[in-house]
Amino acid sequence: MDLILANGEIVTAHESYRADIGIEDGVIKQIGHRLGPAGHTVDCSGKILFPGGVDVHTHVEFEWMGHTTTDDFHSSTVAAACGGITTICDYAVPAPGQSLQDCLATWNKRGEKSVVDYGLHPTLFQPGEHTLSEMRDAVADGYTSFKIFMTELSQFDHYAPQYLRCMEEAGRLGAMINIHCEDQCCISYMTQKLAEENNSNVRTLPDSRPRISEGIAAQRALWMAHVADVPAYLVHLSCQEGLDALNDARARGQTCYGETRPIYLHLSRDRFNEEVFPEQYVGWPPLRDADQMEVLWQALDSNVLQVVATDHVGWSTKQKTEGKTVDELLPGMSNLETVLPMLYSEGVRKGRLTANRFVEVSATTPAKLFGLYPQKGTIAVGSDADITVFDPQKPVTIRQRDMHSKQDWELHEGFEVTGWPALTISRGDIIVENGKVNAEPGRGKLVKRRTYTS
Amino acid sequence: MDLILANGEIVTAHESYRADIGIEDGVIKQIGHRLGPAGHTVDCSGKILFPGGVDVHTHVEFEWMGHTTTDDFHSSTVAAACGGITTICDYAVPAPGQSLQDCLATWNKRGEKSVVDYGLHPTLFQPGEHTLSEMRDAVADGYTSFKIFMTELSQFDHYAPQYLRCMEEAGRLGAMINIHCEDQCCISYMTQKLAEENNSNVRTLPDSRPRISEGIAAQRALWMAHVADVPAYLVHLSCQEGLDALNDARARGQTCYGETRPIYLHLSRDRFNEEVFPEQYVGWPPLRDADQMEVLWQALDSNVLQVVATDHVGWSTKQKTEGKTVDELLPGMSNLETVLPMLYSEGVRKGRLTANRFVEVSATTPAKLFGLYPQKGTIAVGSDADITVFDPQKPVTIRQRDMHSKQDWELHEGFEVTGWPALTISRGDIIVENGKVNAEPGRGKLVKRRTYTS
Amino acid sequence: MDLILANGEIVTAHESYRADIGIEDGVIKQIGHRLGPAGHTVDCSGKILFPGGVDVHTHVEFEWMGHTTTDDFHSSTVAAACGGITTICDYAVPAPGQSLQDCLATWNKRGEKSVVDYGLHPTLFQPGEHTLSEMRDAVADGYTSFKIFMTELSQFDHYAPQYLRCMEEAGRLGAMINIHCEDQCCISYMTQKLAEENNSNVRTLPDSRPRISEGIAAQRALWMAHVADVPAYLVHLSCQEGLDALNDARARGQTCYGETRPIYLHLSRDRFNEEVFPEQYVGWPPLRDADQMEVLWQALDSNVLQVVATDHVGWSTKQKTEGKTVDELLPGMSNLETVLPMLYSEGVRKGRLTANRFVEVSATTPAKLFGLYPQKGTIAVGSDADITVFDPQKPVTIRQRDMHSKQDWELHEGFEVTGWPALTISRGDIIVENGKVNAEPGRGKLVKRRTYTS
Amino acid sequence: MDLILANGEIVTAHESYRADIGIEDGVIKQIGHRLGPAGHTVDCSGKILFPGGVDVHTHVEFEWMGHTTTDDFHSSTVAAACGGITTICDYAVPAPGQSLQDCLATWNKRGEKSVVDYGLHPTLFQPGEHTLSEMRDAVADGYTSFKIFMTELSQFDHYAPQYLRCMEEAGRLGAMINIHCEDQCCISYMTQKLAEENNSNVRTLPDSRPRISEGIAAQRALWMAHVADVPAYLVHLSCQEGLDALNDARARGQTCYGETRPIYLHLSRDRFNEEVFPEQYVGWPPLRDADQMEVLWQALDSNVLQVVATDHVGWSTKQKTEGKTVDELLPGMSNLETVLPMLYSEGVRKGRLTANRFVEVSATTPAKLFGLYPQKGTIAVGSDADITVFDPQKPVTIRQRDMHSKQDWELHEGFEVTGWPALTISRGDIIVENGKVNAEPGRGKLVKRRTYTS
Repeated sequence: MDLILANGEIVTAHESYRADIGIEDGVIKQIGHRLGPAGHTVDCSGKILFPGGVDVHTHVEFEWMGHTTTDDFHSSTVAAACGGITTICDYAVPAPGQSLQDCLATWNKRGEKSVVDYGLHPTLFQPGEHTLSEMRDAVADGYTSFKIFMTELSQFDHYAPQYLRCMEEAGRLGAMINIHCEDQCCISYMTQKLAEENNSNVRTLPDSRPRISEGIAAQRALWMAHVADVPAYLVHLSCQEGLDALNDARARGQTCYGETRPIYLHLSRDRFNEEVFPEQYVGWPPLRDADQMEVLWQALDSNVLQVVATDHVGWSTKQKTEGKTVDELLPGMSNLETVLPMLYSEGVRKGRLTANRFVEVSATTPAKLFGLYPQKGTIAVGSDADITVFDPQKPVTIRQRDMHSKQDWELHEGFEVTGWPALTISRGDIIVENGKVNAEPGRGKLVKRRTYTS
Repeated sequence: MDLILANGEIVTAHESYRADIGIEDGVIKQIGHRLGPAGHTVDCSGKILFPGGVDVHTHVEFEWMGHTTTDDFHSSTVAAACGGITTICDYAVPAPGQSLQDCLATWNKRGEKSVVDYGLHPTLFQPGEHTLSEMRDAVADGYTSFKIFMTELSQFDHYAPQYLRCMEEAGRLGAMINIHCEDQCCISYMTQKLAEENNSNVRTLPDSRPRISEGIAAQRALWMAHVADVPAYLVHLSCQEGLDALNDARARGQTCYGETRPIYLHLSRDRFNEEVFPEQYVGWPPLRDADQMEVLWQALDSNVLQVVATDHVGWSTKQKTEGKTVDELLPGMSNLETVLPMLYSEGVRKGRLTANRFVEVSATTPAKLFGLYPQKGTIAVGSDADITVFDPQKPVTIRQRDMHSKQDWELHEGFEVTGWPALTISRGDIIVENGKVNAEPGRGKLVKRRTYTS
Repeated sequence: MDLILANGEIVTAHESYRADIGIEDGVIKQIGHRLGPAGHTVDCSGKILFPGGVDVHTHVEFEWMGHTTTDDFHSSTVAAACGGITTICDYAVPAPGQSLQDCLATWNKRGEKSVVDYGLHPTLFQPGEHTLSEMRDAVADGYTSFKIFMTELSQFDHYAPQYLRCMEEAGRLGAMINIHCEDQCCISYMTQKLAEENNSNVRTLPDSRPRISEGIAAQRALWMAHVADVPAYLVHLSCQEGLDALNDARARGQTCYGETRPIYLHLSRDRFNEEVFPEQYVGWPPLRDADQMEVLWQALDSNVLQVVATDHVGWSTKQKTEGKTVDELLPGMSNLETVLPMLYSEGVRKGRLTANRFVEVSATTPAKLFGLYPQKGTIAVGSDADITVFDPQKPVTIRQRDMHSKQDWELHEGFEVTGWPALTISRGDIIVENGKVNAEPGRGKLVKRRTYTS
Repeated sequence: MDLILANGEIVTAHESYRADIGIEDGVIKQIGHRLGPAGHTVDCSGKILFPGGVDVHTHVEFEWMGHTTTDDFHSSTVAAACGGITTICDYAVPAPGQSLQDCLATWNKRGEKSVVDYGLHPTLFQPGEHTLSEMRDAVADGYTSFKIFMTELSQFDHYAPQYLRCMEEAGRLGAMINIHCEDQCCISYMTQKLAEENNSNVRTLPDSRPRISEGIAAQRALWMAHVADVPAYLVHLSCQEGLDALNDARARGQTCYGETRPIYLHLSRDRFNEEVFPEQYVGWPPLRDADQMEVLWQALDSNVLQVVATDHVGWSTKQKTEGKTVDELLPGMSNLETVLPMLYSEGVRKGRLTANRFVEVSATTPAKLFGLYPQKGTIAVGSDADITVFDPQKPVTIRQRDMHSKQDWELHEGFEVTGWPALTISRGDIIVENGKVNAEPGRGKLVKRRTYTS
C-alpha cells in the first residue's frame, strides 16, 4: 500500500464502522484490520473518515450581470479542498450564440487550474435544432446533465417549446435535466409592483421572488419533465412550495430529485434587516421566513430532498453593493469551504441528520445522480481514494481571514461550529493537512461522467 | 296579469312543484293556485317550466383565423330561442390595438339584431397600462367578466406578467376572470412532432393538444389567480386533468369554477375516425377518450363542475374542411339549439343529473356567476319572465334542416332525444311556440350585469 | 286565502325576493303581488320570511346516565317555536332489549304533548337478526334514518359486524345512517391516563376525548359506510379531523354528510377555565381549541358541512354538577330557542354565511336529508306553511328568565344578538307572536318521513 | 485470516464492487485486494456475495387453530440456510394466560435446534397491567419488538384500549410494534354473508377478507401508533389499500414501515380456481387480483415498502385440506428456501429491483429495523461473516423433493428460476455448500437485539 489511514471510524451513506483503509495508485485497495505494509501510515484515531464531499452546484469562474467572479478555478477549489470537498460540478454557461462545445472548451481551459477533480454541466440557452446535436456530443464526451433556467435570462417563456424538445432529447440520452425553478411572470409582476410603490430594495427582495413563484415554476417544470419523459433535478429549493411539487410528481410516479442550499438551512429573511451590508444575503431564490429552515431540514432527513449543494459564487463587497433595487442586486456568495463543517455541526451534532445521511446528501447521492459513482462519493474497495478525515470535536469560529476564497467578506463570519476537516485526500494525495494546502494547480482533472443511477 | 302559465310543473335549481305563474310587464308577479285574472292563459299540463337557459359562452358573430362566422346575432339567437335559451353571453374579441370600449361598441352594434337578451365578456389581448383603465370602465358599464386565452393567439407566455396585472385588477373590481386553459408550449411541441412525423391531420388533433396540456395550463392559471386574488372561471374543461386542477385549488381554499361543453359530454375522439367529414368534430380542446365523458357527467353531478355552456360558433362545411394539418383545422360548431334538449335527454332522462341540477348548471349558476341573477336564471317573483315550457315526452330526431343556425351541417345529425321546448318566453313574450318563431330582431337587449355572486 | 303574509322579504336556500305569501288550509297557495283576498293579513314590512327551522338532532325527553331530562316534549317544542323552529327530529333510544317499535311507541306517546311537528330517528343498540326486520318495519312507517353511537354505551367495538349488517340494510332501504363518531379506544385510554395522573376533571375533559379520536372514528365510520353502501351522516362534528374524514370519503366518490352543533361555532375550551359552573359547557365531543371555531364556520360556508343541529337536551344545574371526573360529567344543554338567532347574528350579520346559506343549513338541507322536503324546509307553493317571520334588527340579550326550556340555567346567558323571530307559523297557525305562545300541546304531529334526497 | 472469499462481486444495499473478503473468528476483518494469508480460500469467481438474508417473519414451530406445524426449528432453519438466509426472527406466541417470559423460554427451548442465528418477537394477547412490565423485561433481554394481531384471535376490538397502552409502552422503550392489519368487523361481516349464500369456500376466500379490510385496519393501526407515539411496522401488506395507509401516515410525519410477502409478488387469486389442491394458496391476507402484484413490486422499488419477509409456516397437505369454509381453511406455507432465489429471479433479473435494492429489502433494512444491524444485514468490516455466495446464472426448477422443509408439498412446484446460493456462510462457517448441509443443530444462537435504527 502507498498509504494506510489507520484507526479511524469509516462513515459511508449506510455504514459506520472502525477499520483501516489501504490506498494504492490513488484507489482504495483494502479496508479492514491488520492491513499493510504501507509506505506511509496516518493515525486517524478519534477521527471520522467520510467520502470526500461532492458539490454539484458551483459557479467558480464566470461573468454574470456584467461582473466577473473574484474566485477562479484555483482559489475556489483550494477553498473546496480545505472544506473537505474533493469533487465539484461547475455550470458551463455559453455566451450568446456560443455552442456547448465551445463553451465547454472555455470552461476546461479554466479548469486547468483546479486542485480537485471536477465535472461540468452545460447550460442551455435559446435552444434550436443545433442544440440537440450539441447535447448528443456532450453526453458522448461525458457531460451527462444539462441546466435550464426558468427565469428571464434564459427567455424561458419564449423558448419553452424548444426547451421541451431539449428535455425530451436528454431523456433519450439518459441525461439529467437540472432546473432553476422560479416563475418569471410572478417575479416580473412583483418587481414592478415594488418599483411602483418605491419599495424595491434589499429588504423586499424576498417579496419580489415569493415562495409561490418557486412552487408554480417547480410544478410546471415537473409537468414538462413528465411530458418529455426525463428525470428532473430541481436545484436549490428553498421552501415548502417547492417540496410540494416534488411530492405531487412522485405521487404520479415520476422520477425527480431535489437539491437545497446551505443558506436556506442556516439563514432566514430576517437577515435583510441588518444594518450593515445586508446585500451579502442576496441569493436567488431569496432567504425565506424562519420556519422554512426546519421544513428543509426535515425534508433532507426524510428524503424529500436528496442533495445539499452550494451554488458557490464569489463576489467582492463592491460588486454585491452596487445594485440598489431588487432586480439589480447581485445574487450569490462563496460557500465551498464552510458547507460541510456547517452541515455537520448544525445537522449531525444537533440531531437533525445521522452521520450517514450527512454523507449521503453531500457526497453519495450527488455522485450517483451525476454519474460520478462509484468512482466518487463512497468509501469502498475500487473507488477513488477521495477521503475527508474529519475531526468531529474541533471547535472553529468561522472568519473570513481564514478562508481560501478570494471573496473579501464571509457570509458566516463569527459562526461557531464543532468539527472540521483534518486531512483532505484526493486520489490518494493528502492535499490539505490541518489547514495547510499541498496541491499544485492542475492536479484536479475533469471527470468524464457516466449517465445517472438512482 | 298579462299572461298566466297554468297547470305546469315548475322546476328550479332547488324546487319542483306544481303551480301557476302569473306574468305582468315582463316580470313574474305571482306563483300559486287560483291566480288571475289574466289577459291570456296557457295551459301547461304535462309540461315542465324551467327558467330559460343562460348560455355564457358563445361566439355568434366574429372573425377568426381568417374566417367570418356563418351565423350572426340574429340567426344564432333565433336558434337559441328555439332551443329554450333566453340569455347568451358572447365574447367580444378586440382587433389588434382596439380598445375594449371600441370593441364592445362593435359588438353591441351586432347585438342590435338579437332576439334574446345578451351580455358580453371582453377579451384581453396584449394588455398594457391602458388595459387596466379600460377594464375599470367596462365594469362600470356592466361588463363584469374578462377572458384570457393561454394559447398563442394571445401571446400569453410573452405577456404573462401583464395578464397577471389584469387578473389582479379584475379581483379588485369584483369581476370574474374566464380562462381558456391549454398549455401553448405543450401544443407547439406536439404539433411540431406530428409535422416531423408527417402525421399531422384531423385524426391526430387530440394528440396535438393532449389532456396533460389542459392540466398544466389549468394548474398554472389557478396559481396565477391565487397570486392575483381573483376568482377564476375555467372555460370548457374536457378531462380529468382539468378537474384535478380545480380540486387542488379548492383544497387550498381558492374560489374557482369550471365549465364544460356539450361536445365533451356526448362525443369522443373515436369520431375522428369517421370517413366522412371528420373535421366537423374539431374543437379546442379536442374530443377526448371515451371514458372522459362519464368523468365529466360525474363532475357535473357532484359540483366539481358548475356550468354547461356551448362555445357556439357557426362555420360552413367549406370553412371546416379547408385546413389539413392540426394547426390549420378550424375549431368550433353550432350548438345553441341542441344543448338543452340533449343535456335533458342524456342527463336527466338517463339518471345522471336531477332535473334541478340540470336547471342549476344550464341557467341558475351561470346567471349567478356572471351577475345576471336573480333577474335571469330562476323562476321567482320579481324575476324576468324568461321561461322555457318544456315537453319532456316529445321525441325528436335532430336534423340540420330543422335547425335555425345558418350552419349548413349539424353536428348531432340523427341523434334522437326525448324532450324539446314547447314554448320559449322572454320577458313575458312568447317568442317561440312549437317551433314557430315570433320575435323581431332587436327585441333582445344588452343586460347590464352586476358583479358575480356565488 | 286564510292568511296573507304581506310586504316581507322571502329568503329561501337559493332566492331572496320581495313578495307576499298566501296560505290556505295550512299550505302555501300563492306567492306574489296583489294576492288575496284573505281572512287575515299580517304586514311583514321590514321582516325576513324564512322557512321554519328544522332541527334534526334533539333529545327532548329521555333518561341518560341515570338522569331524566328537565325538559319534555311540551317545554322543548315551545322553546323551539319561540326560537323559530317548526320541526324537530328527536332520537328514540330503546331501553335494553326493547324493540324499535316499542321504543317508537314510547316516544310517540311523549310526542303527544308537542306543539310543533316532529320526526323520530330510532337508535340501534346491540343489534341482532331481529333488528333488521325492525328496521324494515320502521322505514315502512316513515322512520327513515337510524342512529349508531361508536362510543361504549353502544358496545360498538363488540357489535361492529352486526352494526355493519344494519348499515347495509339501511342502504338497501334507502335510509340514512347517523353516526356519533368518537373512538372509544382512544377515549378509554385517555380517560384512564387522566385518572392515573389524578387529573380527571372538567378542565381536562377535552383531553379525554381528543380531536384525533373524532378523526379516527369518522374515518372508520365512513369506511364502514363504504363497505355497506349506505349514505352516512356524521353528527355534531367539532374539528378539522372530522372534516378531513368527510373530504377523504368524498374524494373516493362516497355520499356523506356532516353536521355541526352551535356550541362548537360559538364557544371554545377556554370556557372550562371559568370559575363558576364550568360543567355547563360539557358536551360530547367536548369544546375544542378556539381556532376550530373559524374552521367550522368556513366548512359550513364552503359546503364541507351541510347541517347545523342542536343536540338539545335539558338538564338542571344539579344534574350537571354531580359528576366530577371526565367520565361522570353529564353532557349536553338546552339550545332550541337560541340556535337560530345566534346563527343569524354570528353567521349572517358577521358575513360568514349568506342569508340563503343560513336557511340551507338550518332548514332546507336537513329537511332534504331526512325526507321532510318539500313539505318542510322551504317556502314554495304546495309546501306546509311553516314560516318564521324574523325581525333582523331586533337587539336581544339572552337571559335564562326569558327562555322557555325548563332548564334552570342558560348556556348563552348575557350573549347579545341582533335578530329574533317576530312570528312563528306552523301549518298556517301563528303559534308564537312577539314572544307570546299560542299553541295547544298536541297540535304538533309526527311527520311520516320519506327516504332522503340530496 | 481463517477464510478468504476471493474474486467475487460484493453487493450490499448501496455498493457493488469486486474485492476479496477476509474472515477471522466469525467476523469480517478485511475487504480488498491481496488479503491474507488465510487458512482456507474459496474462489468466488462469477459469484455475487450478498449479506446473508434476514427473514423477520416466521412461524417455524408452533400450534395454530388446533394444528402443529410439520416444520420445527431444525428443519426450517436448514431450509433457510439452503435458501441463503442466515438469520430469522420468529414470532413467539403465548398460550392463554402465559407470560411473555414463559413463552420466550418455550421458544428458546425450541430454538436450541436452530442451525442459523435467530431473534424472537413476543406476541401480545389480552394485555393487562402485567403485560407492561413483561414488555419492559423483554426489551431488557433483547426482544425489542412486539406483535399485535387486529383479527379476532387477539380479541383486538375488545382489548383495544389495552393494546394502545402497550403501544405507548413500546414507544417509551424504543421498541417496534409489528401489526397484522385486517379489519375483523369487515371479515366477520363478509364471512357471514358468504355462509348465508352457501358460498363459503376456498374460491371465495379473497372475498371474505377483502382489500378494503386491509386498508381500514392499516389506517386504524397507524392512527393508534400516532396516538401512542410509537413506530409501526405493518406486516405482510398485500394491496394498494395497505400502501395508501402508509403514504397517508408519512404525509402527516409519522414513522412507519411496510413489509410484503413473496406470495403477493408471485401469485394472484386466479390460483384459487385451480382444480387440484387450491387450498395450498390460502394465506391471511389472501391472494389478490393480478394487478396488485405489479403494484407491490413498484412499492418495493420506490421505498413505499421496506421489507420482504416470508411468514413461513409448514403444514401438511392433510392439514391444509381439512377446512372447507373460508373461516376453517388453514393459512400459510413454507417459503424460507425459495424466497431469495425467487426474489432475485423475478425481481433483479426482470429489472424490477436493482441488486442493491434486493439486498436492502431482504437483509439490510430488516436487520436495521429489528436491532440486528450492523452485526447482521451487511458486508462490512466488523460485521458477522454471514454471507451468501450466490450463483446468478444457475438455472433451477423448484421441486418439493429438493426442498428441506418437512412440508410434503411445495407452493412453487415447477417454477423456474435463474440464480441460487452456492455457499451459505454463517459467522464464518460454511453451513451449506452447493446444497450440502454442514451444520449441527444448535449452532444457531439467539441474537440479543438492540432497539431499532432507521
